[in-house]
Amino acid sequence: MKKSVKVPAAVIRRLPHYLRILEELHGKGIERISSGELSERIGYTASQIRQDFNHFGGFGQQGYGYNVESLREEIRGILGLTREYKIAVVGCGRLGHAIAYFTNSFESTFVITAIFDISPEIIGENILGVEVQDVKALPAYLKENKIDIGVITVPKESAQEIADILTAGEVGGIWNFAPMDLDLPDGFPVYNVHLYDGLQSLVYYINHADE
Amino acid sequence: MKKSVKVPAAVIRRLPHYLRILEELHGKGIERISSGELSERIGYTASQIRQDFNHFGGFGQQGYGYNVESLREEIRGILGLTREYKIAVVGCGRLGHAIAYFTNSFESTFVITAIFDISPEIIGENILGVEVQDVKALPAYLKENKIDIGVITVPKESAQEIADILTAGEVGGIWNFAPMDLDLPDGFPVYNVHLYDGLQSLVYYINHADE
Repeated sequence: MKKSVKVPAAVIRRLPHYLRILEELHGKGIERISSGELSERIGYTASQIRQDFNHFGGFGQQGYGYNVESLREEIRGILGLTREYKIAVVGCGRLGHAIAYFTNSFESTFVITAIFDISPEIIGENILGVEVQDVKALPAYLKENKIDIGVITVPKESAQEIADILTAGEVGGIWNFAPMDLDLPDGFPVYNVHLYDGLQSLVYYINHADE
Repeated sequence: MKKSVKVPAAVIRRLPHYLRILEELHGKGIERISSGELSERIGYTASQIRQDFNHFGGFGQQGYGYNVESLREEIRGILGLTREYKIAVVGCGRLGHAIAYFTNSFESTFVITAIFDISPEIIGENILGVEVQDVKALPAYLKENKIDIGVITVPKESAQEIADILTAGEVGGIWNFAPMDLDLPDGFPVYNVHLYDGLQSLVYYINHADE
């Protein structure tokens, strides 16, 4: 399924959305969907959908529509949701706590393997069957254990330091919740959840709703 | 500052990012920044930045660079961060709890005015000086109180019902954390934080990091 041509970031951002809709359809026992119906469900034009899918060889036949289950499997395969990902959460305050539980609820693809914090009150606590470790132990832990995804839920002030430890410890990628742009090696996989940014965009739309 | 031409969504998504960088520069006492330096800081090309700013009349002079404080104020004004926003959080589990504290920490622009939950164990609890109310009281509350932003942090199964109550209660916009596309009136301001989608995009990049 790999292509040598780089797939645009916007397409990659849309793939999970397609998958979400397909999971819903599959859950409802729907086996086949026309490109028109899919377009209506997902809110992208049929032409946009075709263009997106063409990056991966097209899928399904026009006119016939798409087979829901096989399209779902194709997209899961492209994203790489066919194996397990070991996750280390760094920063176990309210947000880290919530993200750990949230991630763990997502079928068996994502497994919280380790949780780290700086606060003596939290270190030693058992969360999701994992004992919260002192963040000082993070470098040594990463030397001994292969971690696929490091989650950064520490305050902004410590985020770069944690990012440096995670990249040195060769995690596969970083899911960053700190409200800042991390300085990472070129091409290092990162996904930023900038909550403030989203809230501010929403405020813009609230103020321009009548335009 | 309002323009009759609609500003592309991608530009609106980038405005908070500009603001974040400008706040950092301002915090460091930097008064002026060239478009080249700004480009390096933010990771967009200078031409992209010019194009973005042209949607709002340009700002600053080329060659001279941008005045950090006035650019910051311009962007805050465009986004509408110059007044207070009253926020109601619906769903006070781990994520709702974390989002309430997070939002409240964001200067005085955002004020958590009400929190709702369905669980008798959480109703009555005091969070951020606000008593958690029974979600059944939400429609009546919205009739009596003007809410700018409704935050949806309930499980997916209840999210549409809450969205319907929030729109009927004339909130200004919805900040949605439920992993689904809400059915909302045309043009209704909404910002979706689809955590799963982001995590799945990250997984794609982890699997294609060498391309």
